[in-house]
Amino acid sequence: MSEQNDISILEKINYPSDMKNLSIEELETLCSDLRTFIIDQLSNNPGHFGSSLGTVELTVALHYVYNTPYDRIVWDVGHQAYSHKILTGRKDRFHTNRQFGGLAGFPNPKESEYDAFIAGHASNSISAALGMAVASALKKEDRHVVAVIGDGSMTGGLAFEALNNANSQPNDILIILNDNDMAIDDNVGGIRDYLVKMTTSPTYNRVRNDVYQKFKKGNLITEKGKNFILRFNNSLKSLLTKQHNLFEGFNIRYFGPVDGHDLRGLVRILQNIKDLKGPKMLHIHTVKGKGFKPAEVSATVWHAPGKFDKETGERIVVKSKDQPQLFQDVFGHTLVELAQQDEKIVGITPAMPTGSSMTYMMKEFPDRAFDVGIAEAHAVTYSAGLAKEGLLPFCNIYSSFMQRAYDQVIHDVALQNLHIVMCLDRAGLVGEDGPTHHGAFDLAYMRCIPNLVIASPYNEHYLRHLMFTAAYGHDGPFVIRYPRGQGVLCDWECKMEKLEIGKGRKLKNGKDLAVLTIGPIGNAAREAIAAIESEGYSIAHYDMIFLKPIDKALLKEVAENFENVMTIENGVENGGLGSAVLEYFSENNYHNINVTRVGLPDEFVTHGSIKELNKLCEIDAPGLAKRMQETLIRYNVVPQQHENIYK
Amino acid sequence: MSEQNDISILEKINYPSDMKNLSIEELETLCSDLRTFIIDQLSNNPGHFGSSLGTVELTVALHYVYNTPYDRIVWDVGHQAYSHKILTGRKDRFHTNRQFGGLAGFPNPKESEYDAFIAGHASNSISAALGMAVASALKKEDRHVVAVIGDGSMTGGLAFEALNNANSQPNDILIILNDNDMAIDDNVGGIRDYLVKMTTSPTYNRVRNDVYQKFKKGNLITEKGKNFILRFNNSLKSLLTKQHNLFEGFNIRYFGPVDGHDLRGLVRILQNIKDLKGPKMLHIHTVKGKGFKPAEVSATVWHAPGKFDKETGERIVVKSKDQPQLFQDVFGHTLVELAQQDEKIVGITPAMPTGSSMTYMMKEFPDRAFDVGIAEAHAVTYSAGLAKEGLLPFCNIYSSFMQRAYDQVIHDVALQNLHIVMCLDRAGLVGEDGPTHHGAFDLAYMRCIPNLVIASPYNEHYLRHLMFTAAYGHDGPFVIRYPRGQGVLCDWECKMEKLEIGKGRKLKNGKDLAVLTIGPIGNAAREAIAAIESEGYSIAHYDMIFLKPIDKALLKEVAENFENVMTIENGVENGGLGSAVLEYFSENNYHNINVTRVGLPDEFVTHGSIKELNKLCEIDAPGLAKRMQETLIRYNVVPQQHENIYK
Repeated sequence: MSEQNDISILEKINYPSDMKNLSIEELETLCSDLRTFIIDQLSNNPGHFGSSLGTVELTVALHYVYNTPYDRIVWDVGHQAYSHKILTGRKDRFHTNRQFGGLAGFPNPKESEYDAFIAGHASNSISAALGMAVASALKKEDRHVVAVIGDGSMTGGLAFEALNNANSQPNDILIILNDNDMAIDDNVGGIRDYLVKMTTSPTYNRVRNDVYQKFKKGNLITEKGKNFILRFNNSLKSLLTKQHNLFEGFNIRYFGPVDGHDLRGLVRILQNIKDLKGPKMLHIHTVKGKGFKPAEVSATVWHAPGKFDKETGERIVVKSKDQPQLFQDVFGHTLVELAQQDEKIVGITPAMPTGSSMTYMMKEFPDRAFDVGIAEAHAVTYSAGLAKEGLLPFCNIYSSFMQRAYDQVIHDVALQNLHIVMCLDRAGLVGEDGPTHHGAFDLAYMRCIPNLVIASPYNEHYLRHLMFTAAYGHDGPFVIRYPRGQGVLCDWECKMEKLEIGKGRKLKNGKDLAVLTIGPIGNAAREAIAAIESEGYSIAHYDMIFLKPIDKALLKEVAENFENVMTIENGVENGGLGSAVLEYFSENNYHNINVTRVGLPDEFVTHGSIKELNKLCEIDAPGLAKRMQETLIRYNVVPQQHENIYK
Repeated sequence: MSEQNDISILEKINYPSDMKNLSIEELETLCSDLRTFIIDQLSNNPGHFGSSLGTVELTVALHYVYNTPYDRIVWDVGHQAYSHKILTGRKDRFHTNRQFGGLAGFPNPKESEYDAFIAGHASNSISAALGMAVASALKKEDRHVVAVIGDGSMTGGLAFEALNNANSQPNDILIILNDNDMAIDDNVGGIRDYLVKMTTSPTYNRVRNDVYQKFKKGNLITEKGKNFILRFNNSLKSLLTKQHNLFEGFNIRYFGPVDGHDLRGLVRILQNIKDLKGPKMLHIHTVKGKGFKPAEVSATVWHAPGKFDKETGERIVVKSKDQPQLFQDVFGHTLVELAQQDEKIVGITPAMPTGSSMTYMMKEFPDRAFDVGIAEAHAVTYSAGLAKEGLLPFCNIYSSFMQRAYDQVIHDVALQNLHIVMCLDRAGLVGEDGPTHHGAFDLAYMRCIPNLVIASPYNEHYLRHLMFTAAYGHDGPFVIRYPRGQGVLCDWECKMEKLEIGKGRKLKNGKDLAVLTIGPIGNAAREAIAAIESEGYSIAHYDMIFLKPIDKALLKEVAENFENVMTIENGVENGGLGSAVLEYFSENNYHNINVTRVGLPDEFVTHGSIKELNKLCEIDAPGLAKRMQETLIRYNVVPQQHENIYK
């Protein structure tokens, strides 16, 4: 905790129960303390900055008005939930936020009873809250359930499915729409336009605000006044022209928009609507990064800014010229390069233009790059429509988010065998975002789908080769998975080459063990091999490049020359590369081969830095070396002297 | 084609080009002919009846007004598309509809250039049409794109994601909302209520209809009149109280509702709005089963009624008392039985109460059974919310539709290790609905997810045992997959037993080959084994029951006693049971075992009866016997005389 800033109220608050006797003025000071605390903490220990500053007042108001944890607050995504964590018993551990062994970056019921539901992937809060509310009603419990959802999350289909069901069963949930006109990047789409219109319509707001002020001044928002203001809301809406209330179309009672930084107003309206029957929505307007000027101005940059100087607002970017580029940037630049030569190429991202570096394409070809908002399923089917009419879409989706478009990959893409390049960013362990975000399953869940080509590049050059090959070496759906973060080459630029589909390559010869890798993890394997060979072993290394179709000639060569084989992949072991290799050996009657499959375990991996997690899962170089050594010992391979050279 | 009914206009129409010179009166007769034809055909060759009768006028109007196939009509689901098929070169083959080797039941671009996009799973049409329209615009093609979506499909999140994006890129798509207030069962949710209100609001409709009639009579809907009526629409909406236009909230210009059976009106409005710029929606109101009284009255029954007498309207139900029940009914009755004893149990279905037999639960415990509409993702996350608060949800979703909730299974269920029973109905090959609907992938895509128990019952008794075990023998997520259609026992009732999690059973001893099956396909394997044993072989049979956790003790026994093993599953071979067995053998150094994996091929399987498809894929008893024989010959097993007894 910072020493120079006074946060004397927050210091006394450990749980929501400590807040209950504070005055509104003290609660306002608590909000200020929370901001100071969050800015202090995040300047040293990076995290999701902007969203959490935006929800300080809301969080204080919710825990003040509701009886948590008995009442449930379901945060959507949970970027917003730092104040919530700080106020619910985790202040003293907050400096461990997102760190290995520390607090999770998102709400997680395993961490605290105040975290009502898992939050990581967007748009699930209303569904979950509805289930919880209906369950409580059936159990005759007098429990309030509140879902807090950002306007960005509102674009996800799941949120709409839930809205559509909000009035189907008896429940009294409150949905708080935290509208900051942002996802991570600018929010897009009809909903966004709609909310902006609703929030900024002068007619609507002038009338509403006048009335609201009048009530406020006259202190008329009492038990009695409440009913009056509610009725007024309804008739007001009816009277206003051009005001179509989307949410009331779903039979959800709508309140707002109100200023989400006016603590007094928030407390009052929450108290007023808390016990109203039926589903209801409170639309609040907040500013991402509120209270920290640089963040208010550049919300996308300050979504997760890394370390920064809290006094100057300067971000501390450690970047040496000699370091490799991010895979993301290589993707982004290469896509532009391809698009410059081929006007059929278009780019699609579901709300991750910055994260995926689709921004380059958006800047260069604004008409040919589409940010569809948080809407992965639509991103894929929309790409399928584009491809059906002869364009060549590069649809870039984080691996763990592609789970949300699984049916679309099968039904709309693979079944029609459409020529679409699906780039799975953030494949493998992703680090601090943790188990909700690891791209652990894609190799397994994609491999069972007919017609797909599935590949992963060994390094940045191969990412470029694969993008080129996907465009010009194949005429059907093509999956390229690559990890979050830095590549391995300092010079990523190269002439793009067309690879042969389904053909891997031998990186080096060897005698005692054949190591088969897919993707950049091959570089860690290479290090491990060097370490093991220094002990006198001789190890061959093959870069499969393709999971599907698998390189049968390569596997034949391996089967006929090795007794010991190790497969290595940055994905779950069940169903991925290792299984594919076993299947080939079995089908072709190659017995007597010891196959050791190395990948992610059959469990959800925690959060921490990628380095820490790779170590934990023993898929970093030392871990892989250990696994190789264990295998060699297990199968009684005696080290000899060999000459070992990578090709 | 029926001989007794005159369809002289339809007889002359083979392609939309044949319709272009018909008068409106002749087009009306064509509609009548189409109805006669469809009723004739479907009385003999069952299909999706109600939806297709409802869209006769719309289809004729679309092909009359638009220049198909250059202009694109994207049907959603495609139950509605029979008239479309008949009018686009497939009239003479329509008697083969849904039959093996015949026409597909859904639009399929591989079948006809008039089928603009695949249709099978609901809610994809707007996304696909948007992609197609944007592609055409980028290619500077002057192409119209029309999406036809039912109100049931409109509840799916994908449709909303697309609506939210409809105005993000320049496009002129027309979305036709075919509103019959039905999915297969009654449509549910806010959207449904909203559409009903919109269609039935007396104020709204009186005013609109008056005006519309006035224009119609005065023949004022001309190029000039069009603009006037449009402006009027807008101001009308502004004036009407309590009229919130959901779609205009998305910046989609809205027209309607209009009578979808008024051909003249449809043609006129389509002509009028066809060339309007920007995305637009035409809301039409139709009657499912229109023109066939029994179907108009009981839409759910007549969604896909089977054979019927076209004169009397009597359905020809062939059902012998001695035949096994449907797995679906065993599920439905068993769920009620469990729910009667345990008030924690609740049931969830996404729009398939009849198909899944959730209807029994809905009837018996209306407060504890939830039809959430076509919204699989919500169904799963909602179930997770219910479970989080201590209820025990049985969430029943067709296997191929569960693909749409894949992320929710991982993120909201498995990661929180919630106690939810996920019943995957229609697992394996489903028959006439074909490749969009086969439940081919679930074993593979579920097996890679941590924390899941995955099981499949050998017969109806085991379905009951598994449901009981899922409820009381386990405290985490539990998947039970079972196929469409009849079970194998004539007496399905039995006392439910708690099975040991992850424990299979030996059905019979044997020496030459160990057959490992999962699910009801074990019964076909049993037949095959009997056939093969009659030739002198000795074959053991194990019913795995559980895919995950796999029965290691059983596999150890198999590994230590058999040189030849065959795995059999009604799902894709890549990543399923066979792979799991290979993984176990490999991990435990059981070499020298010949494993033959039998399952579905790595391709999309066509449509036809389940019997025909099982034969095609060689997973019926003769096919399995053939595979067994091939395996035994391949591995030089010599037949001897054995005594073979099932336990």
